[in-house]
Amino acid sequence: MSESNASNTPAGPPLAAWTTRIQRSTLEEMLVETARPEVLSLALGLPAAELFPREAMGRALAELIADDPRALQYGPPRDDLRRFVVELMRERGVECRIEQVFLTAGAQQGMSLLARLLLEPDAPVLLEAQCYTGFQQALAPHTARILPVGSDPSTGIDLEQLEARLRSADRPALVYTMSDGSNPTGASIPLAARQRVVELARTFRVPILEDDAYGLLSYDARQVPALRAFDPDWVIHLGSFSKTLAPALRTGWVIVPERFAAALGSLKESSDINTATLGQRVVARFVAQGSFQPHLAQLRAAYRERRDALLDALRAHFPAGAVWTTPRAGFFVWVSLPGGLDTVALLGRALREENVAFVPGSAFAVPGVTPARSALRLNFSFSPPEVLREAIARLARAIAREERA
Amino acid sequence: MSESNASNTPAGPPLAAWTTRIQRSTLEEMLVETARPEVLSLALGLPAAELFPREAMGRALAELIADDPRALQYGPPRDDLRRFVVELMRERGVECRIEQVFLTAGAQQGMSLLARLLLEPDAPVLLEAQCYTGFQQALAPHTARILPVGSDPSTGIDLEQLEARLRSADRPALVYTMSDGSNPTGASIPLAARQRVVELARTFRVPILEDDAYGLLSYDARQVPALRAFDPDWVIHLGSFSKTLAPALRTGWVIVPERFAAALGSLKESSDINTATLGQRVVARFVAQGSFQPHLAQLRAAYRERRDALLDALRAHFPAGAVWTTPRAGFFVWVSLPGGLDTVALLGRALREENVAFVPGSAFAVPGVTPARSALRLNFSFSPPEVLREAIARLARAIAREERA
Repeated sequence: MSESNASNTPAGPPLAAWTTRIQRSTLEEMLVETARPEVLSLALGLPAAELFPREAMGRALAELIADDPRALQYGPPRDDLRRFVVELMRERGVECRIEQVFLTAGAQQGMSLLARLLLEPDAPVLLEAQCYTGFQQALAPHTARILPVGSDPSTGIDLEQLEARLRSADRPALVYTMSDGSNPTGASIPLAARQRVVELARTFRVPILEDDAYGLLSYDARQVPALRAFDPDWVIHLGSFSKTLAPALRTGWVIVPERFAAALGSLKESSDINTATLGQRVVARFVAQGSFQPHLAQLRAAYRERRDALLDALRAHFPAGAVWTTPRAGFFVWVSLPGGLDTVALLGRALREENVAFVPGSAFAVPGVTPARSALRLNFSFSPPEVLREAIARLARAIAREERA
Repeated sequence: MSESNASNTPAGPPLAAWTTRIQRSTLEEMLVETARPEVLSLALGLPAAELFPREAMGRALAELIADDPRALQYGPPRDDLRRFVVELMRERGVECRIEQVFLTAGAQQGMSLLARLLLEPDAPVLLEAQCYTGFQQALAPHTARILPVGSDPSTGIDLEQLEARLRSADRPALVYTMSDGSNPTGASIPLAARQRVVELARTFRVPILEDDAYGLLSYDARQVPALRAFDPDWVIHLGSFSKTLAPALRTGWVIVPERFAAALGSLKESSDINTATLGQRVVARFVAQGSFQPHLAQLRAAYRERRDALLDALRAHFPAGAVWTTPRAGFFVWVSLPGGLDTVALLGRALREENVAFVPGSAFAVPGVTPARSALRLNFSFSPPEVLREAIARLARAIAREERA
């Protein structure tokens, strides 16, 4: 029953041509190393497990299943949760109707379904030079052609390059961006720039996929509206409870024009029949008990404290000439090191000599751009402040040695 | 903030061309009607909610979350569950290794991912004339070209037509079939025919996607091995806990050659990051407690009783000339009515006059075949025996009136 056989061609079917675009890099192999228990990891983008509302969730699950066997059955999306999403979107400055709320298995499923719904094969797609790898993966089966534009770690997508791309003959079929607490750079787009981005999309009739996975985790008193607030036709909005409640609920949403509903429903059904309503019921019950807003406030405070601990440690330990920005939302700080230091080599040293991990900036480079060789992404959501401080001290030692090497 | 605007073209982006293949039929509109509470429905393919091991699941969920915060976190697939799948596959006659077990969000996600992994755009795909609509939906984004072959409600896929298609110049890139308790016909492929099907696949180097969603729910003492038992290279096997435990766990699996692992992992990640390990942990705990096999034995007995109640009622009430087969597995009985009766018209009457529902056979017809106009699919898993008996008595009255109309 072996899989090999005597002939020259491998036994069994070939894979579709697009799969040759999937590459497991040496960097990914290196990141496997970060799972060693002695490693302090600022590499992954996980929420803090100790901040999950565990007791409430465990109780809600047990009660929901005891109360109603249909909690374990196939079932249509829950309208109570869709109504709450309408309410929650007002915090992002967005007015929408329940008919425009489509529930998904997290924001990742939303972007995968919408790429499928909007893109013809080989379509040109505009991405920032550093881009969430999960969206790059979602584009692979479409053999999309990437049109890169610059990105500033403070203000996000480069407006002039965006406009030039939209004015050119080779116009993108889709623009993807994160407007708040971007992964990987931590950037948030300033208010005036948001209005301009949306105006450009409308003028040139190019849809924007706004990935708002981190928008509710903002650390400023002043909230800036999401891109979707400025246009209901050309901005498609992705949200998620993975970061504000727990990833295991697999509950996210998209805000789309109502005319998408039939196709999106069919595509979702063919992808996994339905998201389990169990996760949706848990969120809805948590909300109905009035627990969501206090929990969100607690999370913002806890993650703000972690962000500030990381930034303080960077100021205390990192070399002169290293630059970073203060993220207003999300999970990440983007640091550029001086002297052309290679952060892939640095990661090797940091793992070997200091048991500390991060992700080199080059891991997020889209095809066709020069990777940010001296940049690194640091996560501050997963680890408590004392771990962040120790991790940065270790990393600074590794940098000092790498600079001399 | 309305979605319409004053111009002639609709505001907002167009959908990809393949979406024009999605059609919501008048039949689907009619099936919405079946959700009225007074309707006895033999239409849907749901497992019986009252047979879910609710107490055990509720307890397991609460305990798992209390014991380990990572139960709510992102996480890689659980090896304990993959090991159990290896064990469970032996009941289907299949020897496999843990490295060949890939966990999915139900069998539907497995078929969606594998279609993406194996099919080039516009690829020819071989389906039986009556085919699970969820797989037809999963093919739509690939703009697959359907090559239909006949299907017998007792013995399944037509061997001669299959061989003729494989020998022809227009050879399919993929064959999809259910070997046990097929949806919609209830057919199970006889042992000798299984060996022949696999031999043909191997000879002509065409992969078979074996959808085994119902294989574990077999009602015969004698178990027939799955197609995958006869070839590890050319048969890809799909399984699920949705029917044997509960759909809300969203836990299924595929058995694939190991060389698929990297591409399948990347594709799954881009689709929904990961299946919540919470569902996987619940199943693994249920298994570890020794509860799975007794539960499966109970389910088989309960569903066998329901099947027999439905068959008895058909014999008692349905007109002479109606034919059906005794399904050896699964959830469905396929009935052909005499006299060219149109079962779409019959459904309208049955809903209006008798508050009873089923799915007309034509709903499952693949493009290019003459729909089975006088056939109907009856589900026996969802309703207890007394409801099945009453539903069939009502349906027989509707048939009698439709015959006279």
